[in-house]
Amino acid sequence: MSTTGTHHPNETQIVAAPELPTIRIVREFDAPPERVFRAYTDPTLVVQWLGPRQLTMRIDRYDAHSGGSYRYVSRDDDGTEYGFHGVFHEVRFNERIVQTFTYEGFPDAVSLETVAFEDVAGRTRITCTSMMDSFETRDAMLRSGMEVGVREGYERLDELLTGQ
Amino acid sequence: MSTTGTHHPNETQIVAAPELPTIRIVREFDAPPERVFRAYTDPTLVVQWLGPRQLTMRIDRYDAHSGGSYRYVSRDDDGTEYGFHGVFHEVRFNERIVQTFTYEGFPDAVSLETVAFEDVAGRTRITCTSMMDSFETRDAMLRSGMEVGVREGYERLDELLTGQ
Repeated sequence: MSTTGTHHPNETQIVAAPELPTIRIVREFDAPPERVFRAYTDPTLVVQWLGPRQLTMRIDRYDAHSGGSYRYVSRDDDGTEYGFHGVFHEVRFNERIVQTFTYEGFPDAVSLETVAFEDVAGRTRITCTSMMDSFETRDAMLRSGMEVGVREGYERLDELLTGQ
Repeated sequence: MSTTGTHHPNETQIVAAPELPTIRIVREFDAPPERVFRAYTDPTLVVQWLGPRQLTMRIDRYDAHSGGSYRYVSRDDDGTEYGFHGVFHEVRFNERIVQTFTYEGFPDAVSLETVAFEDVAGRTRITCTSMMDSFETRDAMLRSGMEVGVREGYERLDELLTGQ
């Protein structure tokens, strides 16, 4: 087994597929799937890690079960609020979550997100696939700086899982 | 304005996009949007038209509002049952419905469906776009004979709207 000096096992990979309007994110965590799954589905935990560090998150509802729905609001230092909402198509215990997602600044745009939780020798690999309705929407999402929020959110989740 | 002898205004157009794993259906109805919208959202009406003629539909739940969910079962003459379920991301009165869709025979496959209702001089044009997770899934759906069920369902909806 070879490793490179700069590679970190918990590096966040973000890939835009050439043939589909998707963004695929792969990330590993130093905790078993049941703990990562709980951090994704218990709103008292979600509020502690989701999104970039400089935004404050408020959860209006987060019913993470099949057929449930969610809404949360992120607020920046100026008090500007950004709302997000969707429904949970499926929450399969410790295995996968399928949900819709709308940023309320673009209320007609809906993406479908699937998060798969995989046990990798007691650690967890998640694969998150977001499918948008067009390549234009997908590419605009990438240009919006979403990568910063994704990476910082997962760093905060690392900290939550390791009790920092 | 020119017409062809074989063209019917309520013809069902079913188009598979070359660049996206979608199926787009365009269909007009001889009724205003509020009546077509109601036929899509009131379960006592949905059960009368959705699907092909030779299947009997039973609705377990059909909460057609934003954040609601649905499940229905189609049964053939042999008593074989086919289940379908999903969640309503958005039900925008008389304008559009965005919902997820899973055929329970393939429980991991999820598509995202958007139905837009447009007023065309007192009649209604609906545009239904289904996005699957891959071109393979989309093409398998087309090969499954879904076109028959779609066309027959809309003919039954014609009959419901005209009181036959």
